[in-house]
Order: sequence, then C-alpha cells, then structure tokens
Amino acid sequence: MIGQNEYYEGKVRSLEFANAQGKFTVGVMEPGEWTFEAPTREWMILTRGSWDVKLPGSDQWKTFGEGDSFQIEGNESFTVRITDTVAYLCPYT
Amino acid sequence: MIGQNEYYEGKVRSLEFANAQGKFTVGVMEPGEWTFEAPTREWMILTRGSWDVKLPGSDQWKTFGEGDSFQIEGNESFTVRITDTVAYLCPYT
Repeated sequence: MIGQNEYYEGKVRSLEFANAQGKFTVGVMEPGEWTFEAPTREWMILTRGSWDVKLPGSDQWKTFGEGDSFQIEGNESFTVRITDTVAYLCPYT
Repeated sequence: MIGQNEYYEGKVRSLEFANAQGKFTVGVMEPGEWTFEAPTREWMILTRGSWDVKLPGSDQWKTFGEGDSFQIEGNESFTVRITDTVAYLCPYT
C-alpha cells in the first residue's frame, strides 16, 4: 500500500512506502517555511531544488543543494525554508 | 499546486510539480508490470530500488538500478517490471 500524506493545506505532500531496504517517504514541498517533528530517526535527501534548514537545536539557517542530505534523530523537530518547489526522499527508521 | 496522480488502482502513485528547473513527477510503484504512455519527452530516474524496463520498440527487458535513468520520447510507451517497491523522479518536457 502506498500511503498518502498532506501537510500545511497541501503545500507539502508525500507518498509513503516500504521495501526490502526499509521505510521511505518521497515528497514535494512548495515555497514557505515548514516545521516537522520526526518521531524516529530519519534522513532528508534533496532530489530536486535547494532549501535552507534550521536543524534541531540550531537557530542558524544552513543551505542544502541537490543531492545533499541531513539526519534527524527521533523526537526532534526541524524547519525548512523554501523559495522554489523541491522534491525529497526520506528514509526513516 | 502539487498534483496527485494514481494509476493501476493505486499501485502506482505520483506527485506532480514545477519549479524554475522544469516540470517533474515523483512517484512510487509497487510490484507488478506497468505500462505507461509518455505524451512528451521524459526521463525516468530511479531513486530507490531496481526495475526491468522494456524500452519503446524493444521486446527485451533491461535492468536498471538505483540512480540509473532512461529517456522516453513523446508518444512512446514503455513497460516496467517491478519485484520490490521503487521510487522514481521523472523530469518531463
């Protein structure tokens, strides 16, 4: 079953799946500033576009480009700032 | 606006978006054999998993792995054979 998620009134959407490699979401985020809570460890891999990220415990924006990734531990939140729509892949545990 | 597409009774789902780089879909395909018609030129980039592909005009399966891509011209159809769920990114024109 491919799950479907929607956040922030549809400005962020993702598809959820699992395979032999593990659990994943793939998603799209429109321009805006979006905060997410990660319930478990996850990795955000940018597949198209760029974004600025406020990592957990940081008050500084850090810029990531295509192919870049960052890791989030469980029960942490992070914020992304997007000026042009991006696509991402998110393996999670 | 992030578009949502569903094919083959939800065994293939994709999200559709555009940014300054062009037009894209990101999607997930569950196990099965799925045929698609590309209305315009597009590229299928596998972001997780592997699949066998019957390219337009070919009757041979060709295996592609993670990060691999193939190009489809407009008004051509291709078939993918999947044994474990995959994720892909598809830039199109």
